[in-house]
Amino acid sequence: MTKKTNNSEILNSSATQIMIAAVLKLFPQAKLATGKISSTGFSYDFELPKNLTPEDLLAIEKEMRKIINKDYQFEQQELTIDKAREIFKKDKQFYQLEFLEEIKEEGQEKINLCKLEDLINIPLDNCLSSTREIAPDGIKLVDISGAYWKGDEKNKMLQRIYGVAFKSKVELKKYLAATKEAKERDHRKLGKELDLFVFSDLVGPGLPLFTPKGTLIIDKLREKIERICRGYGYEKVMTPHLAKIDLFKISGHADKFKDELFRVTSKYKQDYVLKPVQCPHQIQIYSSRPRSYRDLPIRYMESEKQYRAEKPGEIGGLNRVIAVTIEDGHSFCQIDQVKDEIKNIVKIIKDFYGSLGLWKDHWVSLSFRDYKSPEKYIGEINDWKQCEKILEEINSEMKLDAKKCIGEAALYGPKIDFMFKDVAGKEIQIPTIQLDFATPKAFNLSYTDKKGKSIVPVMIHRAILGSYERLLALLIERFAGVFPVWLAPVQVIILPVSEKFNNYGKSVMETLQKSELRVEIDDSDESLGKKISQARKQKTPYLLIVGEKEANTGEVAVRSRAKGDEGAVKLEDFIKRIKREIETEE
Amino acid sequence: MTKKTNNSEILNSSATQIMIAAVLKLFPQAKLATGKISSTGFSYDFELPKNLTPEDLLAIEKEMRKIINKDYQFEQQELTIDKAREIFKKDKQFYQLEFLEEIKEEGQEKINLCKLEDLINIPLDNCLSSTREIAPDGIKLVDISGAYWKGDEKNKMLQRIYGVAFKSKVELKKYLAATKEAKERDHRKLGKELDLFVFSDLVGPGLPLFTPKGTLIIDKLREKIERICRGYGYEKVMTPHLAKIDLFKISGHADKFKDELFRVTSKYKQDYVLKPVQCPHQIQIYSSRPRSYRDLPIRYMESEKQYRAEKPGEIGGLNRVIAVTIEDGHSFCQIDQVKDEIKNIVKIIKDFYGSLGLWKDHWVSLSFRDYKSPEKYIGEINDWKQCEKILEEINSEMKLDAKKCIGEAALYGPKIDFMFKDVAGKEIQIPTIQLDFATPKAFNLSYTDKKGKSIVPVMIHRAILGSYERLLALLIERFAGVFPVWLAPVQVIILPVSEKFNNYGKSVMETLQKSELRVEIDDSDESLGKKISQARKQKTPYLLIVGEKEANTGEVAVRSRAKGDEGAVKLEDFIKRIKREIETEE
Repeated sequence: MTKKTNNSEILNSSATQIMIAAVLKLFPQAKLATGKISSTGFSYDFELPKNLTPEDLLAIEKEMRKIINKDYQFEQQELTIDKAREIFKKDKQFYQLEFLEEIKEEGQEKINLCKLEDLINIPLDNCLSSTREIAPDGIKLVDISGAYWKGDEKNKMLQRIYGVAFKSKVELKKYLAATKEAKERDHRKLGKELDLFVFSDLVGPGLPLFTPKGTLIIDKLREKIERICRGYGYEKVMTPHLAKIDLFKISGHADKFKDELFRVTSKYKQDYVLKPVQCPHQIQIYSSRPRSYRDLPIRYMESEKQYRAEKPGEIGGLNRVIAVTIEDGHSFCQIDQVKDEIKNIVKIIKDFYGSLGLWKDHWVSLSFRDYKSPEKYIGEINDWKQCEKILEEINSEMKLDAKKCIGEAALYGPKIDFMFKDVAGKEIQIPTIQLDFATPKAFNLSYTDKKGKSIVPVMIHRAILGSYERLLALLIERFAGVFPVWLAPVQVIILPVSEKFNNYGKSVMETLQKSELRVEIDDSDESLGKKISQARKQKTPYLLIVGEKEANTGEVAVRSRAKGDEGAVKLEDFIKRIKREIETEE
Repeated sequence: MTKKTNNSEILNSSATQIMIAAVLKLFPQAKLATGKISSTGFSYDFELPKNLTPEDLLAIEKEMRKIINKDYQFEQQELTIDKAREIFKKDKQFYQLEFLEEIKEEGQEKINLCKLEDLINIPLDNCLSSTREIAPDGIKLVDISGAYWKGDEKNKMLQRIYGVAFKSKVELKKYLAATKEAKERDHRKLGKELDLFVFSDLVGPGLPLFTPKGTLIIDKLREKIERICRGYGYEKVMTPHLAKIDLFKISGHADKFKDELFRVTSKYKQDYVLKPVQCPHQIQIYSSRPRSYRDLPIRYMESEKQYRAEKPGEIGGLNRVIAVTIEDGHSFCQIDQVKDEIKNIVKIIKDFYGSLGLWKDHWVSLSFRDYKSPEKYIGEINDWKQCEKILEEINSEMKLDAKKCIGEAALYGPKIDFMFKDVAGKEIQIPTIQLDFATPKAFNLSYTDKKGKSIVPVMIHRAILGSYERLLALLIERFAGVFPVWLAPVQVIILPVSEKFNNYGKSVMETLQKSELRVEIDDSDESLGKKISQARKQKTPYLLIVGEKEANTGEVAVRSRAKGDEGAVKLEDFIKRIKREIETEE
């Protein structure tokens, strides 16, 4: 039997077994429940005679190292269920017995057990051959939590131990450093420290409230995307959050988002739902008057909240919310306008994400129809083929270097998706361009062509910024809270060296405010050292220190986030410099 | 019995009686139901053997004039119910008999009937002495509609005739001209013609969808109010539309808006309501971290939709909607900051409404507590007295010339309300400043004072712009759609004299767009005359006509809404001029 020690999952699997052996050594009464193993770590649930402390984890780790150093042998055996039952009966492992009964009922007759000398024998699919293949200083138990047997709160609460295993100490250290960094950058932690958003038990989970600073960042992002889109002919519209369910029955969303729909009722008869998407509302504006080929393309954009119910347990931070502020837009156009229209949307995406420094890490997917599964799509085959051809042409003309992903199309048409990476390297899809023939037909949309004939327009759904909440989470983590100057909620903080210079500080503040800069002053009676350290914690781009010399010369002593102490400069020169920086960034 | 003919209500009451007599003359089988009389008109419901046409109205009017000219006498009699019953039984007026039974059941024993010779005898409270007191050419029947007996759709549908009566033909003419003007300016009519907002049966009544042009006006108003408020230290926040009902139980709104609350449910357990007000959400941001006296005043503002259910029959246009976009804000401050804080809010109100040309028509109400009805208010008497004193001082220092309105205070504190007039001269209250001691206590709000003691802040609710929907309706009607240049959705339209000059027109458009002007071009093949007439209908402030001469000299021929044909000017001079105009207006 050959096994590769460089297979991280086998490594973590064997480490799990060693941990179980170590736990049994320290707590012979321990009952083994179940575990999860991946290539980046493992966890196992135990019923134990006491609640584990961090000290217990260290003791278990120590015991694990002892076992590793003894060069014990792993052995994999295939046993009948009956034989396995004998073993677990003897060990009084009743969770394992329950598990055996279940798989037997499902018709399974045999089971793989992994034996580690006479220490332990448990169901595991993979194991190494010897404990010495694991580096004793490459393992670490990282956390403890409570967990119900089978995840059901009616069952007993067990204790779950989390661990990681690496081939070497160096790799473990690298991993721990990265984890610490990710925790530091976590948007929930930074969001609180930088006072960007809050949650309230009285409002409810998944319903973030944006503070002045968070709102400012969102507004700046909104202004930027609206400015760019306006340059390409997009017009902003404003639609309500409610509609009769009929609207979403026609669009198909009532069916698609059945579980996620919020129902709205009142004392009066009329019932509504909260919009789970923006498209049908925007369609109502298109269809509110007759349209001619001369009017097309008609392009609407909107940054509004939509609401989708989520399982309470799945809500968290800004990434899973039930109030999602969506930057959404739609073009209604003639078929021969589709290509230029999509090219322009790609340009907008490149412009927006380029300026945020995210473009370099992206890749593009041409999400096409799977012609072998016609049941997954609606619309005419010829329309599909024509539009997939257009997307291929755009890919080659614009050098997008896209991957073709067959079967990834939307119900109603092919699409182009743009993938970015979050700080942990996880891929997330934000912008999307989707061709849609079906919805305009469902809503009976039309325009009059040159000959006076009524034609159904093509609809292009496009999200550029996507969810403001998710983008904010991504940016907080990517910038680790160090926002570029144009996005920083406070761009400049003025620190008078003592109370005597508060007045000069205030006059500097007013001058900066007149230049439309976002400025604060710390005129508290704290020491300058403490003021500087507080301002740094808030990641403010510029600290302007003012004392006697500066008050006399009309200067400010600049400390920048980027370059540290830069010495004193004339106030007007500082203004010119920061305004230039903002203009370049915007 | 003395009666004044200049009492418009008596005039309309007598005109009603004459109309009834005329109807009976033409349709002796007519059954009289009930009517409404006010100082500005009257209506009466009949059961008739045929559906009335406009020609029938003219015939009835003619008959009314005949009666008036005969100098018939009105006579008011008080009769017992039994006596009145005899009269109506004889006339077979069964609606009147039903009415008599009802008032008898309520314990009424006598009734006032108004007799007009032997023509008619019906219950009316007032009448003139002779028909000649009415000017024959001062009456007009203006409309017909259907109406259910007692407003209940289970009852028979009757026909309602609407009329007006004036002392003279001149007054009638004036009234009809004003009515026509009001109809022309009606925001529902202009909103459609100028394509500012639409309604959709699939979305629902009371849920306006704002088109690009309407959204632009709303955005400009929002930017303006936000800019002004930011200058006074207001910071924008963003909160969701949902909350658990607990939030509004604490604030008291769950009780206050019981009937208007929208309940929100989903497949998952958590239930919500749609926010009927913004305050409790903003309070959650205040209370999300400890506050010090150094932080106060903390000022939040937000322009967001709130939702209140309305009886379907009461919804109409933009004045009664269920999705209301509210410009709402709150200051949290120390008691000794209240006066300056309110003065600043008054300045903001004056600034905002002044620039819209509405300030000259306003009056101010000091809405105070009625000390004789303590059950209507919450909070400490001393706080009330102190704050009413502050408001009185502000009134005198700022020369607001306010009327004191005792009993008009809010539940939680005194307020200042600002009243404006709509185009029909009807008073409407928009801005309000309300002092609130109770809500901060209900939510356990606090700040730490200089001595480290925990103090409850005072909360000032202030709405400046109020409801965007209602303000937009007011502005549409006030300006009759002729928006000032800074608010006009399209500021300039370019009209090439023929297709040959479309390219020059487009280059002019691009130049104007670079100067951030809102420009359209009419490059259709319509005649110039038709293009001009269409642009005028859209009330566009500037029409730029371009032909051979202009293309050669880099000029544009200006037609302004204000001055008509102004001749050709250099394009750059036109840009300077319109930019200056916008700056002055903004």
